[in-house]
Amino acid sequence: MHYQNAQLRRPMTPHEVRLACRDGDLKGHTNGLAPGYVQGNLVVLPRNCAFDFLLFCHRNPKPCPLLAVSEAGRWDLPSLGLDLDLRSDLPRYRVWKHGELIDEPTSIEAYWRDDLVSFVLGCSFSFEEALLEANVSVKHQSLELNVPMFKTSIKTVSAGIFSGPMVVTMRPMRAHDVIRAIQITSQLPQVHGAPIHLGDPALIGISDISKPDYGDPVPVATDEVPVFWACGVTPQAVVLNSKPPFCITHAPGCMLVSDWLNRELSAEPAPLL
Amino acid sequence: MHYQNAQLRRPMTPHEVRLACRDGDLKGHTNGLAPGYVQGNLVVLPRNCAFDFLLFCHRNPKPCPLLAVSEAGRWDLPSLGLDLDLRSDLPRYRVWKHGELIDEPTSIEAYWRDDLVSFVLGCSFSFEEALLEANVSVKHQSLELNVPMFKTSIKTVSAGIFSGPMVVTMRPMRAHDVIRAIQITSQLPQVHGAPIHLGDPALIGISDISKPDYGDPVPVATDEVPVFWACGVTPQAVVLNSKPPFCITHAPGCMLVSDWLNRELSAEPAPLL
Repeated sequence: MHYQNAQLRRPMTPHEVRLACRDGDLKGHTNGLAPGYVQGNLVVLPRNCAFDFLLFCHRNPKPCPLLAVSEAGRWDLPSLGLDLDLRSDLPRYRVWKHGELIDEPTSIEAYWRDDLVSFVLGCSFSFEEALLEANVSVKHQSLELNVPMFKTSIKTVSAGIFSGPMVVTMRPMRAHDVIRAIQITSQLPQVHGAPIHLGDPALIGISDISKPDYGDPVPVATDEVPVFWACGVTPQAVVLNSKPPFCITHAPGCMLVSDWLNRELSAEPAPLL
Repeated sequence: MHYQNAQLRRPMTPHEVRLACRDGDLKGHTNGLAPGYVQGNLVVLPRNCAFDFLLFCHRNPKPCPLLAVSEAGRWDLPSLGLDLDLRSDLPRYRVWKHGELIDEPTSIEAYWRDDLVSFVLGCSFSFEEALLEANVSVKHQSLELNVPMFKTSIKTVSAGIFSGPMVVTMRPMRAHDVIRAIQITSQLPQVHGAPIHLGDPALIGISDISKPDYGDPVPVATDEVPVFWACGVTPQAVVLNSKPPFCITHAPGCMLVSDWLNRELSAEPAPLL
């Protein structure tokens, strides 16, 4: 373990990260903070959209792996961490009305309503940590880039008002690492699980691998195979595409840091795809 | 289950297959006989080569997954089946002296010696059955061809007198099936386990995918990825390459049919690679 933050003398615990957000001391990315702990994407919706979104997650477990769902109006999520306040414990949020971004606050207490349901979804930080621990190289991290993300021709299974294309992340790997990465991520269904594609990008509607829709381009060497995982951007893109009257998400890279250990995620056997 | 043999009114049990060999009624391939049961490759060597070969298998578990090893001079293998006589219960054998084929008998009783040690190694029949049960298509079977096999630039880890290149089988698959096949075969380390390569054949020294060293050519479509598994031909090629004074193997396709169910193979957790 090394120091993740110049201001800190030791790695933060998840609780310390949440308190730093709550106190207004942490307003930036959470990547690398509280190493070893699960971080999650946040989607907050009014109860009258919540059933549709829950069903959407159930029908699309690879892009939308649910870690926890709150009771309506509750801002705690005891299964993910004690002393956890969803209104203040992320560094930054995005508030949306009818699909338009209206604010990027560091707290959503002013926007809180008794009918809001919070969904926390697994993210690829956890499986990238598992890959690195197994000596599988993660190229965009080596290059200090953001992972490249692409809209695809793969349709999600729609539910109520929610529908849209699947977004994927791409990681180039040599064949040996491809096989290992499939083995490892198959054991981690709560953080996107096994890849959904590998090889020819055109087969899933990606016309130019050097031009991602989000994130940074990462080159694919001649001895590498591009490997594609379902991406947590999918639910956000689908939600915003459906223009619900009100929605709150985390700001990009500003995740909820939970008390779950990444190593706990592989304790359950993986369903095959 | 369907009838595997025109002479039979129902699928044979493993014991019935062994008895049919022993009685001289079965002299051909065992593929498809006693469906659901594990079949194995046979290598028989004098005791003074046996330690080297055992060590070679231990160091190369993917091409040489050991199912059972006999005591010197013993022709039974109770762990693989009751009433099993290694000297007569395979349809046909090959007898080698100093790397030269000298006989292809249906029984090796005339060649038996008190110093012979028998090795039974897993074969890909078992994992192909697991793939088909999961609706992963196995193209050479659909085309009614033998699986294509290639010598590679991948070196096995040598042990004593035994060394040589790894031989692989190739199965073309669409990306979705590649991912499933890696998941499924990772659970079956006793029958070669996960693939050892996928994608560009040149990276493992295969210059022309349409010209296998053994078996039949199988075309790779533009939406397919060639996937390569370590092959049970490896130990035979390595043994014969080392020219031991005496050796007996099964004849190609004429396997030992055991009492193990293929489904029993995945009962143990798979080591990663």
